[in-house]
Amino acid sequence: MTQVADLGEFSLIARLTASLSTPPDVIAGVGDDAAILDIQGAMLLATCDAQVQDTHFRLDRSAPQDIGRKALAVNISDCAAMGAHPRFALISLLLPPTLEVATLEGIYDGMRQEAERFDVAIIGGNIARLAERLVLDITMLGLADERRVLRRQGAQPGDAIFVTGTLGLAGAGLLAQEDPTLSVPRDTRQRALQAQQRPEPRVAAGLWLAAHGATAAIDVSDGFLADLEHLCEASGVQAEIAIESLPIAHATRTIAQAAGVDPVELALSAGEDYELIFTVPIHAASDLTRQLAEATGTTATQIGFCAEGAPQVMIRGNTRSANTPTGWDHMRGPMARN
Amino acid sequence: MTQVADLGEFSLIARLTASLSTPPDVIAGVGDDAAILDIQGAMLLATCDAQVQDTHFRLDRSAPQDIGRKALAVNISDCAAMGAHPRFALISLLLPPTLEVATLEGIYDGMRQEAERFDVAIIGGNIARLAERLVLDITMLGLADERRVLRRQGAQPGDAIFVTGTLGLAGAGLLAQEDPTLSVPRDTRQRALQAQQRPEPRVAAGLWLAAHGATAAIDVSDGFLADLEHLCEASGVQAEIAIESLPIAHATRTIAQAAGVDPVELALSAGEDYELIFTVPIHAASDLTRQLAEATGTTATQIGFCAEGAPQVMIRGNTRSANTPTGWDHMRGPMARN
Repeated sequence: MTQVADLGEFSLIARLTASLSTPPDVIAGVGDDAAILDIQGAMLLATCDAQVQDTHFRLDRSAPQDIGRKALAVNISDCAAMGAHPRFALISLLLPPTLEVATLEGIYDGMRQEAERFDVAIIGGNIARLAERLVLDITMLGLADERRVLRRQGAQPGDAIFVTGTLGLAGAGLLAQEDPTLSVPRDTRQRALQAQQRPEPRVAAGLWLAAHGATAAIDVSDGFLADLEHLCEASGVQAEIAIESLPIAHATRTIAQAAGVDPVELALSAGEDYELIFTVPIHAASDLTRQLAEATGTTATQIGFCAEGAPQVMIRGNTRSANTPTGWDHMRGPMARN
Repeated sequence: MTQVADLGEFSLIARLTASLSTPPDVIAGVGDDAAILDIQGAMLLATCDAQVQDTHFRLDRSAPQDIGRKALAVNISDCAAMGAHPRFALISLLLPPTLEVATLEGIYDGMRQEAERFDVAIIGGNIARLAERLVLDITMLGLADERRVLRRQGAQPGDAIFVTGTLGLAGAGLLAQEDPTLSVPRDTRQRALQAQQRPEPRVAAGLWLAAHGATAAIDVSDGFLADLEHLCEASGVQAEIAIESLPIAHATRTIAQAAGVDPVELALSAGEDYELIFTVPIHAASDLTRQLAEATGTTATQIGFCAEGAPQVMIRGNTRSANTPTGWDHMRGPMARN
């Protein structure tokens, strides 16, 4: 018998959801960062994401507050990627009976702080017992301004591709966390740990981009290449990425070097950066970085463009990592590098 | 250190959610069957509930389709209890890698069937790995007609208390499931098993009651007494229940007798009936059963009334069970019987 482990996440989702029907008030269902509903004229987004102990977080490695913050932040990031306001959260807790109440209160406190920071109201939830692990399963509802949302689909051949912030820093943080003896400056380590444990959802940038003509967007959760490929598949475009243009922080390079890892590989595949990949028409590209920074304080870098062709990511340029792809096991779709 | 197991579910929720703030578009947050949101004039309900393997279901006792149906049904029931249309579901799956895909497909198929039966669209979800158990965590969004919803609060002293259907049949089904050798007629066993494995959310009744002046409602999930007590606490009324008026199906009595269990105890405490407890002004009580049955085909029985006094449930009448309360461990609030 076929087991769940034999199928990838995406083929499993495809199999389960193949025959779902979609009523007219569901503008987008399965397959975007969030579903989009038409609630009597208002555009409501709905998404959920679970953080599982020892898969997504470890109680011995992160402060309870940081675990709570991040559980909320990854859902807020889904709203950011669609250019919407995160507004309402439902918190479903699966709790081992032996969990210390003080730890749980710390986690909940972190969720509440993150919620307040983004004007999200915690409106309810559920508590159930789960013997083995703590799971934080969060549903986030968001609202779009004037029915404008960003989706994975919408990018056109010729559009420029940008990414906010830098890539790979969260992955570098994971390396630093896994090896406390890594010989790097203290503030470098701290910066990377912060990126890993306290991701900053790009809500202001997403809202600004939705209002200023971006054609498609996605957040970097699974990894830059995997997520960009989702965008390519949804939009039916090929992405041409210039490898030397990828924004990689000095801290990422320092930690990668100390750990013997290719920083470009971290940038391409490590994931959890929660930056936004987005596309804009080429005529808007030249001044976009300045405008976005002025309006929201968020940096963005043009890293390539969309072309006609099979929906895949083409990496242009020389890199050590081009010959040593790692961390890609979760990907099944077409992918090429040259 | 205090552990989660040292606190009851309700005191844990109270502790975690004590300092949550509520923006103006949150009409009701934590503390009802669902949160109520004002989405630009539309009344949207949001609720979530997790079904955990070996706590809420067992793969060796229920068909996969039934497990899926019920996971959706318990969330639909929360919308029913508030007199709203269940509309959109997010399905969060926590999956052991060894789970057979065929089992998962059966469960998802059951969810899809139940969704279609109630015009609910499955709009998205999440898949995460959980080594030890299968968990189905479902978020349900509902919409109220013309801003009318039923809540736990709203019952007034003097209101009549009703319950739909019968009480204890799901509990009898659990007894039948636990002891396959129980000497009861085959159709009796089947009826009880069906009640336990395929609860029927009272959506039509809830909608009708919301439109016809019911003052408060809650569904029977934890157990009749526990849930009625929630209604009393939210409404600030005392409930006076006439024990001989409780609707108990013949099948429930037959199975209870065979298992050596008091059927009244099943009715009061076993839970999972997913019937609606509701209150109506006394002037509406006399004809309500007929009207509700004509409009929705749902039976309802008047079982008592609301009085001024401490928010608790007073059971009137003689019963064996009055001296042998069982199954109440999850309750902490004030409770009296005489």
